[in-house]
Amino acid sequence: MNKQSNTYEASMDNLTAEVVERLQDSSDPRFKRIMTSLVTKLHEFIRDVDLQPSEWLTAIEFLTATGQACTEKRQEFILLSDTLGASMMVVMLDQARAAKASKGEFSATEATEATVQGPYYWEGAPEMPLGSNIAEGVLGEATYYSGVVTDLNGKPIAGALMDVWSGDGEGNYDMQVEGSDMAARAKLRCDEQGRYHFWSIRPSFYPVPVDGPVGRMLDQMGRHPFRPGHIHMKVSAPGYELVTTHLFVANSPYLDTDAVFGVRQSLIIDYQSCPPGVAPDGKMVEHAYWKANYDFRLIPSRN
Amino acid sequence: MNKQSNTYEASMDNLTAEVVERLQDSSDPRFKRIMTSLVTKLHEFIRDVDLQPSEWLTAIEFLTATGQACTEKRQEFILLSDTLGASMMVVMLDQARAAKASKGEFSATEATEATVQGPYYWEGAPEMPLGSNIAEGVLGEATYYSGVVTDLNGKPIAGALMDVWSGDGEGNYDMQVEGSDMAARAKLRCDEQGRYHFWSIRPSFYPVPVDGPVGRMLDQMGRHPFRPGHIHMKVSAPGYELVTTHLFVANSPYLDTDAVFGVRQSLIIDYQSCPPGVAPDGKMVEHAYWKANYDFRLIPSRN
Repeated sequence: MNKQSNTYEASMDNLTAEVVERLQDSSDPRFKRIMTSLVTKLHEFIRDVDLQPSEWLTAIEFLTATGQACTEKRQEFILLSDTLGASMMVVMLDQARAAKASKGEFSATEATEATVQGPYYWEGAPEMPLGSNIAEGVLGEATYYSGVVTDLNGKPIAGALMDVWSGDGEGNYDMQVEGSDMAARAKLRCDEQGRYHFWSIRPSFYPVPVDGPVGRMLDQMGRHPFRPGHIHMKVSAPGYELVTTHLFVANSPYLDTDAVFGVRQSLIIDYQSCPPGVAPDGKMVEHAYWKANYDFRLIPSRN
Repeated sequence: MNKQSNTYEASMDNLTAEVVERLQDSSDPRFKRIMTSLVTKLHEFIRDVDLQPSEWLTAIEFLTATGQACTEKRQEFILLSDTLGASMMVVMLDQARAAKASKGEFSATEATEATVQGPYYWEGAPEMPLGSNIAEGVLGEATYYSGVVTDLNGKPIAGALMDVWSGDGEGNYDMQVEGSDMAARAKLRCDEQGRYHFWSIRPSFYPVPVDGPVGRMLDQMGRHPFRPGHIHMKVSAPGYELVTTHLFVANSPYLDTDAVFGVRQSLIIDYQSCPPGVAPDGKMVEHAYWKANYDFRLIPSRN
């Protein structure tokens, strides 16, 4: 048995080597590097699990269905990447590269951690003045957001730009409703001291779309499809790396088991319950509201 | 630098572990095993090449386009699997399992080696009597195919079934023409001595479809899309493993660089040139023709 087994092992090794060697005429060194690693890991995976022909066919059918579930409004392959932690890995690597490029002048963990962009970013949100309610008429409990954007030494970055978006208090994004207008989205420009404040709502947990192939995969994995409550931000300023991140609502369900692995401990913030009265911006508020505070720290630009 | 670098390394390790742990509630142990390996290798790949966000997006777009190129007549994901050597790896593993199941009673390399099925199998080819010309009216040079189907000790298998198909002498399959009838396809039943013979054509090399995402990938890899000339067979008999394989035309271009990595040395056979005259089956042939001989050796059934 060992003799024939070794023969097969050898010819499987040859197969991987043959596929890799076939890249020798590629004129794109980076593509060659990526495909060499991809082929090697793909073959390792197939051998590791001793993939059977019927399982291979299931995989082919799954990938085909995933591609065919994609529309202008839906990106099922990004959802697949998100739910397998691949997107988050790419995000972490990118931030690690930025940290390394800073030549050790700071500890990268002092920067605001990045997380996944998710599928609900909508280019071109309106710029609103500081203090605006960006979620006028949106379902949910009012929240006062404030903080400062600084460099890694805590020096304020005047005029930093925040691009903010979230779902509503029941976990629904504007984009999920056919023909809807933008809601709970805005760009805000920090003041000369790098400070920002605005009103929005306290976001709720919600499920990723489960009516496609990825939903079926999560089900077979024994996993739930939920993301904990969070508000998205892209924060940028000239001379600094743009950071795409979330702030997560402390005590939200699913913080420990985010379906897309986006939670970082440093991004979980307390929403402080406040009685009706005068808010920090001097505004008279007639209902209870929440206060959320977070200071963003940006990494110097790589370029 | 090392400190922050280590921090990131650790949190990337945690991410992979977190994704794998999230499989703990899956009730399907085989699925869990496969997904654990897949996630691990996928994350290893992303880290190994330090995949950048723009490269990740290119991959998402490529996979999406591959899914959307699939139709009832075209399976671009199988083509992707074929051209990355993944299909051939699955084929080899399956045959290795069959060999192991035989408990070492023979050397697996004595069996007829399997290779990929390819996209042109058409269920339900007509059964024709031994000696038939299965490629009546098909473009290409006439070839007399003959041989015997035996077990691994060389004992003939009476009544073994061969399901044969190929493209024509210019490399085109019947299926590639809209609304075409079956051509160069047949089922043939071996005689009591396990012998078969039939007439068909000598197949030509041809390219895999290159007008989709996989064609663009091959181009960027610096690879040609050609397969060497070959004729396909599924050979089966009760009590034996069905083998899906090809016979390759010796001296065909691209034998060394088959676009789908399907060539096995043991499957390359000489096509012997014969002058007009009486053929081995007693038929008078008025033009030059080829003779091709191959004996199939089947592995005992696993079940």
